[in-house]
Amino acid sequence: MSVSELVNGVLSGKRRELARLISLIENEDPEAAEVLSRLYKNTGKAHVIGITGPPGSGKSSLVTKLTAELRKRNKTIGVVCVDPSSPFTGGALLGDRIRMQEHTLDKDVYVRSMGTRGHLGGLARATSDAVRAIDAFGKDIIFVETVGAGQAEVEIIEIAQTIIVTDVPGSGDDIQAIKAGIMEIADIFVVNKKDLPGADRKVTEINAMLDIDPIERAWRPPVLLTNGRTGEGVLEVIEKIQAHLQFLKESGLLEQKGLQRSRDELHDLMRYKLTRELYQKLEGRPEYEAAIKKIAARKEDPYTVAERLIAEFLFSESR
Amino acid sequence: MSVSELVNGVLSGKRRELARLISLIENEDPEAAEVLSRLYKNTGKAHVIGITGPPGSGKSSLVTKLTAELRKRNKTIGVVCVDPSSPFTGGALLGDRIRMQEHTLDKDVYVRSMGTRGHLGGLARATSDAVRAIDAFGKDIIFVETVGAGQAEVEIIEIAQTIIVTDVPGSGDDIQAIKAGIMEIADIFVVNKKDLPGADRKVTEINAMLDIDPIERAWRPPVLLTNGRTGEGVLEVIEKIQAHLQFLKESGLLEQKGLQRSRDELHDLMRYKLTRELYQKLEGRPEYEAAIKKIAARKEDPYTVAERLIAEFLFSESR
Repeated sequence: MSVSELVNGVLSGKRRELARLISLIENEDPEAAEVLSRLYKNTGKAHVIGITGPPGSGKSSLVTKLTAELRKRNKTIGVVCVDPSSPFTGGALLGDRIRMQEHTLDKDVYVRSMGTRGHLGGLARATSDAVRAIDAFGKDIIFVETVGAGQAEVEIIEIAQTIIVTDVPGSGDDIQAIKAGIMEIADIFVVNKKDLPGADRKVTEINAMLDIDPIERAWRPPVLLTNGRTGEGVLEVIEKIQAHLQFLKESGLLEQKGLQRSRDELHDLMRYKLTRELYQKLEGRPEYEAAIKKIAARKEDPYTVAERLIAEFLFSESR
Repeated sequence: MSVSELVNGVLSGKRRELARLISLIENEDPEAAEVLSRLYKNTGKAHVIGITGPPGSGKSSLVTKLTAELRKRNKTIGVVCVDPSSPFTGGALLGDRIRMQEHTLDKDVYVRSMGTRGHLGGLARATSDAVRAIDAFGKDIIFVETVGAGQAEVEIIEIAQTIIVTDVPGSGDDIQAIKAGIMEIADIFVVNKKDLPGADRKVTEINAMLDIDPIERAWRPPVLLTNGRTGEGVLEVIEKIQAHLQFLKESGLLEQKGLQRSRDELHDLMRYKLTRELYQKLEGRPEYEAAIKKIAARKEDPYTVAERLIAEFLFSESR
């Protein structure tokens, strides 16, 4: 498919073209950037909602229930599931995606899993681009769901405008969520499995942590109870999602987040392009290979060599 | 302290200078690179051993017991504890370091915790440099211990020559270790808490997974049982650590790993330096700030702007 076919396909709502574009994104194909560059002006309309939390805290079932409810309101939905914990098996372990099956025949729901092929930075970059593609495709609400809840997930989820952090009563390792630094990024807390003992206590605990939190907040994250099986509490989650978006708009934070996002992305793209350029210019050159051998033999140090190579190959040479 | 004072201090075994250097490394102070550049030729002597595994699998107690045993053999020890899961609280949650207290009065043991201040890439870079500083300081064996066992930890631990993966019987989420992709990087498996029921079964499971593993291995990772409390099994771990180092040397893999490490590090340093240069050249410039606003307003796309800025600011301009 040509760049134009992909651009037109995505803009006219063709799933095959969207799937193809996301595959190009995953494979870091340069064509993906061309397509995304042309789609860019058609983006920025979707409400991107990140969902993170420890494994087993009901992220997938929450997304499924939210999707069902939002479909009743005629909202179109995109879901991107990200598993940064698995460098080798990729998306293969995302078997719980099977729960989204009730929506697979609905053309207004688009679900895509993404695993790690390369390093973490690559996954965050790819996720951000995939969300953008689905945004251009025209979905109203895009969920970005992570498998775990570590630093890697935090970096990925930060592209969202609204972040939901899930937890379950008696998850044993109560400190887990706090440790992962996800307390600080939550806009809405959802304690799932409200039929389990300890659910109310969990809500109290999270509220207590928010009370002692030194961060000054214009938006106090609500702590909600849901039941992923029955769907109880899901309506309230949707209310709070809408209220949060409203808050972002009225407070000017939505615009501010958009600017920060653009700044981060520009940086990220420049770093990415420069790094690739570096690879292409240096890999395989005899001077480069010789320098590596000298470093390994402790005859030169990598800090000095890095300075020299940057000066020699990237700046002095004509491009 | 001047660069020379730090270099001489570290080389003559002064703990205060080493601590100061590692703080500079953590703060990404440019002076750190100068010091490390001058220390580099004095490195490459330590055996770096990575220890990773799920939380609660006894990594810290294993390191403590190994340290005690290796001290009896007059080996000097460095320990770097890394917690990539916490972007905000940094090293503060590494309270379990308290277990190493039995060694705090031993001047031949140096322990240091590192948390995430910035992004993950920064932590891997800082950990690698801290290990190098301790290497130059003269420690024979350096343990790099991670708090969790995700992709982030894998990236950090890859600087080690020998990697130990810990697990416990009945850790519930048996798939966790496999998921994290740490099966593939293990040189030695240690099933801790051998007094717990299910320890033998766990050993069998790991061995079974190794049997079906499609990777061709010259070194079959042994699966050992230990008791972190009593120290049972620790001698065997030490034997296997030594056997693995021997294997690396005889097979030529040690040299090969050293070359790969130098290659990766050179890349990493170049990328890091370029990124910093980019920040310094662009941040705050009116054209740059205007471009960010246009991107946020969808009047320009970040892909095209990134290309243009790289060409304009980094290449055409005189440095």
